[in-house]
Amino acid sequence: TKAKAEVVETANSIKKHVQDDPRRVIHSLKVGLALTLVSLLYYSRTLYDGFGVAGMWAVLTVVVVFEFTVGGTLSKGLNRGFATLLAGALGLGAQHLASLFGEKGEPVVLGVLVFLLAAVSTFTRFFPKIKARYDYGVLIFILTFSLVSVSGYRVEEILELAHQRLSTIIIGGATCMVVSMCICPVWAGEELHKLVASNLEKLANYLEGFGDEYLQHCPKDGKSAAKSDKSSLTQYKSVLNSKSSEESLAILARWEPRHGHFRLRHPWKQYLKIGVHSRQCAYLIEALNGCINSQFQAAQGILKSEIQDLCKKMSQESSKALKALATAIKTMTNPSPADVHVESCKNGIKDIKIALKTWSSEQQEDLHEIVPTATVVSILIEIVTSIEQLTQSVHE
Amino acid sequence: TKAKAEVVETANSIKKHVQDDPRRVIHSLKVGLALTLVSLLYYSRTLYDGFGVAGMWAVLTVVVVFEFTVGGTLSKGLNRGFATLLAGALGLGAQHLASLFGEKGEPVVLGVLVFLLAAVSTFTRFFPKIKARYDYGVLIFILTFSLVSVSGYRVEEILELAHQRLSTIIIGGATCMVVSMCICPVWAGEELHKLVASNLEKLANYLEGFGDEYLQHCPKDGKSAAKSDKSSLTQYKSVLNSKSSEESLAILARWEPRHGHFRLRHPWKQYLKIGVHSRQCAYLIEALNGCINSQFQAAQGILKSEIQDLCKKMSQESSKALKALATAIKTMTNPSPADVHVESCKNGIKDIKIALKTWSSEQQEDLHEIVPTATVVSILIEIVTSIEQLTQSVHE
Repeated sequence: TKAKAEVVETANSIKKHVQDDPRRVIHSLKVGLALTLVSLLYYSRTLYDGFGVAGMWAVLTVVVVFEFTVGGTLSKGLNRGFATLLAGALGLGAQHLASLFGEKGEPVVLGVLVFLLAAVSTFTRFFPKIKARYDYGVLIFILTFSLVSVSGYRVEEILELAHQRLSTIIIGGATCMVVSMCICPVWAGEELHKLVASNLEKLANYLEGFGDEYLQHCPKDGKSAAKSDKSSLTQYKSVLNSKSSEESLAILARWEPRHGHFRLRHPWKQYLKIGVHSRQCAYLIEALNGCINSQFQAAQGILKSEIQDLCKKMSQESSKALKALATAIKTMTNPSPADVHVESCKNGIKDIKIALKTWSSEQQEDLHEIVPTATVVSILIEIVTSIEQLTQSVHE
Repeated sequence: TKAKAEVVETANSIKKHVQDDPRRVIHSLKVGLALTLVSLLYYSRTLYDGFGVAGMWAVLTVVVVFEFTVGGTLSKGLNRGFATLLAGALGLGAQHLASLFGEKGEPVVLGVLVFLLAAVSTFTRFFPKIKARYDYGVLIFILTFSLVSVSGYRVEEILELAHQRLSTIIIGGATCMVVSMCICPVWAGEELHKLVASNLEKLANYLEGFGDEYLQHCPKDGKSAAKSDKSSLTQYKSVLNSKSSEESLAILARWEPRHGHFRLRHPWKQYLKIGVHSRQCAYLIEALNGCINSQFQAAQGILKSEIQDLCKKMSQESSKALKALATAIKTMTNPSPADVHVESCKNGIKDIKIALKTWSSEQQEDLHEIVPTATVVSILIEIVTSIEQLTQSVHE
């Protein structure tokens, strides 16, 4: 029965993975398809005689090059193709150079050349720009150069071999690209587009839920209602660590051809800017969330209802502004509807400042008890500022 | 002259990369060395006759397996070795099975098998656990299985081939491991250890600089002194996005054998917990920094000097607590010295609360002007809380 429970658990986790993103299944089938096509090509005797053992390079290429997004496949395929060509030519040159040094000198010269090239190429992989775009190409470059230069074949043999190998790599690469682009393609650019918009929505959900959850007139009543949208209050956490996935998608997106609404030179960098600002906003929300959870309970009901209302209004307005921005990004329209909400947020700040002034002259409350309120106000103001910056970058 | 300027610029950027981490140069030389060794082995005729074309697999293994850290090299090497073995055996089985279906059925059965195996294996790569640890192994598994099963050789030939290929892969992998472990090894575990400690130090530096920068008795005077340690106020930003690098290092560290002070089953997960708390603290600092920069200038000098002193003392104490924790991690000693500072932080909170109470009854200031002060106090309190959690996880 223990084994049975484990099987059930595994089955559930598989099911969850499929439901999370059904394209994963499609991708797996696509890899299977591409690999089967190339394998049978390699298997069929007529072609086998033509390509010799080189046919296995087609299989190898498919396995290594096929990625989840079209951009990933294209970037790896092109990197592989060009690196093989360049390194092959250089390797030939190195072999020719080494052969001039006679039978004894040849291995020494070859060894020195391989050492130098491998060390220099490996070092270039530490540069962030090269690492991001050409990491795989440099790897293949080192590999092909060493294979060709120390292969010990005569030049004519190598040319024959190179011809075979290149054509099989092209077959493998082309199969990958065609399958990945034609059957339910997953565009890195579109993923990035959706990710950025959904991150804004997650932030908006928090701010919306925040108003309902913490800024109730009667906090005790809200408990049952609050539980239902707890999830909207934790979604924003995924935005905190979105940097690396956004950056890698932006890099892959640059390799992709025109598709859907996206031109060839779509301003992908702009998305990264929006990403920076939305993370800024997420950090503030995280701080707000921390302060609220630890200090608010102790001082619940402290917020004067007038100020409470203003805060609620402000968080609601900023939520609307973020949602308008997300919609504008999604539909690629002008984000001017968001401006209205940003304006009303700014007015909200002014109102709160005035309310605080009148409050202080009216009442003689314990200053220490105002601290949480002040914090909420202050962070909300910051959030509004960062939303303003967001709006600007979306406008661009 | 323009070309000259570019050359100078490139040279400077290379110089900077070397200075940032001189181990990068050493790593490049190590890759060169390993590759040269294996290439010459492949080149030398005596061995060449023994291994045939399979010798190139040794070169391929070195290029693909050699990573910056020992853990990375070991994980890739072992993954490659076991995946090749397993897939080779399965591939043989598949070929045998297919041959039972006669000449016409064979390619169909082989195609179906390759398709199924490739699709299922690719799907497993989406599981985070498998992706983190065995991604490369699954890739090699798919590759070897398709190569072996569709190779079209007879079984005896394949066994001969497999023997050659495995021995060359072992030669390549062993060369990588020996070179990477014996010549200036870079241990992923040690890197993680240093990273976590230095992240704590960066946070401590901010809190220390924060006291001097913003909580001066005479804010106007501080300007010249402040500029000098601006860098300590921005270091913490790198902590915000440290999650992915910490996690990948922790995964690689698990592959490493005993080294230095680290046992084989060092509690690497504990470092991730510390990492989570330090990021929490970094988010709070980011929010504090944002609020201070935008709202403090407008209301500078507002903080009553008594409260200002208390805040300064608190940020200094929390900085000391963090530094004590960082030292405890570095030297792997008991972090109890930090407890004293945490205690005095807690007392600081109480003092501030009392100070705020007396202040409010004494003075009739504009409430709106207290908001920034209150925010600083509130976030500092949160920071102290998160430092407390940090202390706990370091104790563990």
